[in-house]
Amino acid sequence: LTTAFTKSLALQHPIALAPMGGCAGGALAAAVSNGGGLGLVGGGRGDREWLERELALVTKQIVRPWGVGFLTWAVDTDIVFWALEHEPAALMLSFGDPSPFAERVRNAGVKLIVQVTTLDEAKRALESGADVIVAQGSEAGGHGGRRATLPFVPAVVDLVSPTPVLAAGGIADGRGVAAALVLGAAGALVGTRFQTSHEALVPPHVVKALLDGRGADTERSRVLDIARGVPWPEQYTARVLRNPFLESWRGREDELSHDTAVQQTYREAAARHDLDVISVWAGEALDLITEAAPAADTVAELVAGAERALASVGNS
Amino acid sequence: LTTAFTKSLALQHPIALAPMGGCAGGALAAAVSNGGGLGLVGGGRGDREWLERELALVTKQIVRPWGVGFLTWAVDTDIVFWALEHEPAALMLSFGDPSPFAERVRNAGVKLIVQVTTLDEAKRALESGADVIVAQGSEAGGHGGRRATLPFVPAVVDLVSPTPVLAAGGIADGRGVAAALVLGAAGALVGTRFQTSHEALVPPHVVKALLDGRGADTERSRVLDIARGVPWPEQYTARVLRNPFLESWRGREDELSHDTAVQQTYREAAARHDLDVISVWAGEALDLITEAAPAADTVAELVAGAERALASVGNS
Repeated sequence: LTTAFTKSLALQHPIALAPMGGCAGGALAAAVSNGGGLGLVGGGRGDREWLERELALVTKQIVRPWGVGFLTWAVDTDIVFWALEHEPAALMLSFGDPSPFAERVRNAGVKLIVQVTTLDEAKRALESGADVIVAQGSEAGGHGGRRATLPFVPAVVDLVSPTPVLAAGGIADGRGVAAALVLGAAGALVGTRFQTSHEALVPPHVVKALLDGRGADTERSRVLDIARGVPWPEQYTARVLRNPFLESWRGREDELSHDTAVQQTYREAAARHDLDVISVWAGEALDLITEAAPAADTVAELVAGAERALASVGNS
Repeated sequence: LTTAFTKSLALQHPIALAPMGGCAGGALAAAVSNGGGLGLVGGGRGDREWLERELALVTKQIVRPWGVGFLTWAVDTDIVFWALEHEPAALMLSFGDPSPFAERVRNAGVKLIVQVTTLDEAKRALESGADVIVAQGSEAGGHGGRRATLPFVPAVVDLVSPTPVLAAGGIADGRGVAAALVLGAAGALVGTRFQTSHEALVPPHVVKALLDGRGADTERSRVLDIARGVPWPEQYTARVLRNPFLESWRGREDELSHDTAVQQTYREAAARHDLDVISVWAGEALDLITEAAPAADTVAELVAGAERALASVGNS
């Protein structure tokens, strides 16, 4: 499965790990890259101490191309430029205006990957000089927008071609990877599936909740971000496992944001890992995720499944 | 592109016309069937006069397999059984419990197609003896549920296999059809794209609005159903082109349902075809729909595009 994306980054497989903040650490990124995909460390808002530890891990463990991702609206330019010193092959920016970072990333010889959730964002990513554009559908776990992957990906492809596009959102098995490719994408960016990888920084009871959960148990919401006190731009909601706390505040987001006591409640619940309250990022493809595995095995399975899916068409 | 669906109904292509109420009349269904797909007349809630005219049209124009679809929650069993006398090859039921109809449809030698929007509905469809199950994603124009096509289709396939599944929602070109097939579906059910067909019962200014519109201009809502005074079950919202009327009532659905004057306002706006008020059903794949065409040409283009998409993978 050779694509413009695999060629551009000298990868074996058109699979990228979503740089899930906090959970895609150095071990997971290294495992995906060593498996032939592109491992992306989830740098989130740019916690320097966390990054020093995880980037050291990833650079120690692999020789293959790897990368790191950040939340564009939240990260300081300094952290991004400091991360470039670790010589990633790619740097990914999600949710916000990439232009303050773009030139410096590209001048460092690092491929700039920009994730978009609307056609307007795709146009801006193209103008900023992105080397790869991730078209993310609303099915994705964690933060995202409102467009659905299947119709959104070809629309982005038509807009930005020949810039390679990765499809993200709702992809958890080989069939989804195959769908990404026939939609015109040059690969798939996979998140939730890798949250259950052995190398992910995800506690066992959360992995169990993900394996037990179904797509219909997930929901996009601002409730848990407000409760966490994280000032996400309003257009990016988070898909999480529905829980009693979310249900009790759904539709009362304004009230929640003025309730100062509730952030304390949330912090206490987080300290005791109370899944009835805290956010568990989870995508809609949860129905397709039934067992935990080493990430490299998952990369291999995604590719083999995609090849099977492509070969089976028209032969039934 | 031979599949379990094309074999089951002796079709040339794995493409079905969504039985869009009022807009998929006899001429459009005949054109899709004559083009090698499965044309389904949009019987909606079962208006006998409309159906007599449109079923007469379709039976006059074609010898190939065709079908008719109804809204399960709204249609009388009498109308469904009467429709069977016209000898369709397939009868499709959407949105509601198919069990009161199922046995009689199948005893008439007519293939029963059941559209589902959740895994629980898919299970019920299977239990009712459906011959084909349509897994409809939230991207679809008009009424539907909350699941997105890309992750929902393989989950339904895994649940109901070997019963053939059609993918619906967000499919408007050959790439979408190819995606449906690699996801494990035996074909695609296409709506919005055929709304712009020359044979559709859609006024020219609505066709223009669809061609001009973008996926981001569509939105799922209950507002316009409430204003129309049609008692749709709450779980089925309608994806429509956003307009000032919808925006003014968004989030105030309960208030709207108690405002008796507003239904009169809506009827008057409908009489003058005022697109600032009335509902224009439209799916999220609108970005991919740029010109009106005869439906048979569209069927041919969908298939050729799917073959191109499948052949292009891995060859870039």
